[in-house]
Amino acid sequence: MKHAQELRIIPLQFEKEIQPGDSLVREVVSALRRTKTAFRPCDILVVKHKIVSKLEGQIVDLAKIEPSRSSQKWAQQYGLDARVIELALTQGRRIVRRKCGVLITETRHGFVCANSGVDVSNVDGGRHALLLPDNPDRSAARLHRDLKKHLNLLIPVIITDTFGRPWREGLTEVAIGIAGMKALHDYRGCRDPHGYPLRASVDAVADQLACAAGLVCGKLNRVPACIIRGFAYEPGRGTARDLIRPARTDLFR
Amino acid sequence: MKHAQELRIIPLQFEKEIQPGDSLVREVVSALRRTKTAFRPCDILVVKHKIVSKLEGQIVDLAKIEPSRSSQKWAQQYGLDARVIELALTQGRRIVRRKCGVLITETRHGFVCANSGVDVSNVDGGRHALLLPDNPDRSAARLHRDLKKHLNLLIPVIITDTFGRPWREGLTEVAIGIAGMKALHDYRGCRDPHGYPLRASVDAVADQLACAAGLVCGKLNRVPACIIRGFAYEPGRGTARDLIRPARTDLFR
Repeated sequence: MKHAQELRIIPLQFEKEIQPGDSLVREVVSALRRTKTAFRPCDILVVKHKIVSKLEGQIVDLAKIEPSRSSQKWAQQYGLDARVIELALTQGRRIVRRKCGVLITETRHGFVCANSGVDVSNVDGGRHALLLPDNPDRSAARLHRDLKKHLNLLIPVIITDTFGRPWREGLTEVAIGIAGMKALHDYRGCRDPHGYPLRASVDAVADQLACAAGLVCGKLNRVPACIIRGFAYEPGRGTARDLIRPARTDLFR
Repeated sequence: MKHAQELRIIPLQFEKEIQPGDSLVREVVSALRRTKTAFRPCDILVVKHKIVSKLEGQIVDLAKIEPSRSSQKWAQQYGLDARVIELALTQGRRIVRRKCGVLITETRHGFVCANSGVDVSNVDGGRHALLLPDNPDRSAARLHRDLKKHLNLLIPVIITDTFGRPWREGLTEVAIGIAGMKALHDYRGCRDPHGYPLRASVDAVADQLACAAGLVCGKLNRVPACIIRGFAYEPGRGTARDLIRPARTDLFR
């Protein structure tokens, strides 16, 4: 029987706003130093996608967006910003639902979320919108590699966004980019303590880690990242694509 | 600016299987004592529903279930146990999807999940099935009250189950019963550090706490509960009903 160990979630408070071209590793290491600890071999770094998008310049001047007639009409009906709707439509590859003032799309990456992940909060007060990173797995891999160079440690990296969900109220964090660990833990083939085979037991550990991080990375404080210490992750070439259900097994397309 | 504090998730390893009529508070306190800590004022107790269901005798002898012809046929087609399917159908009030060997229902409580939450793993090797607690909010409230009596502390309680999700692979934990804290944190009306008003910002904190707990409460170890220490929850009369999206705003019915 495996013994469970305590988990710690250590918030990383940044001193300044991230700017395009900043060194994220340097910010992370200096934030961690202020908490009077250093990286340890079993740590996982979880980062909100917003600072990654800012760093990578995934930012759009809303003044330059010309919304279509249909975006204008729909935005007006629900008191929304037509430019954000227009941008969301260009960032999606499929509209999943457009109803009651909510636009759910499938992004180029395959994520199903509101407004293709286009966000105006926590940017600069409404003039610019932030897009998802172009390739969040690649962004995670870059940070993973930079941490290795800097610290000589293999620290898995998870990049998160905040998604809504069908049937349930409220938003939760999900993993949209992963490097250095598996996204899913597969218990199929294992048996429970009574010897009963576990059938439907694949845990979305990267999403659960994202949620745990969401408890310390708030919207109103400047904590865009945290360390999760003590989780027995499965090392390997993880990808956020493993968390996207393929069309053929998706009951809700 | 609120400063974020570190979160700790302390697994509670039970010495024995819970039996109907056991004192859950006693088991929790003695498990906590073995970790060489005691409850503190800002702790939250998270408990897997299975031990609550066992305690409350929410257990069904599968030998006594007579599956209908249609359950038999469907179960045979996908290599499932027809008795479990039959039981799941009686526990649901609406079939949401029945496709590709997966049965998604809305339970009496209003939760949308596979097989109405009926589970055969981690019970007794396949002879009995476990149902959800009759009223998980009430179960949480009872535990909350018992903890207060025992410790003279107001410890919020969350009871969890493991649900699948549309569009995303893998299971995550969700809150199905809550006492002593709010299920949602509502940031609407607040402004981000740039002064931009937060619109769609209601966090499902109880579900994120459930996910965080899921990282230490495993399927293969006997850790059916944990303490989450350091989260600034909003005290109050929470209920898991707040996490269920009402039919009128549900885009995916």
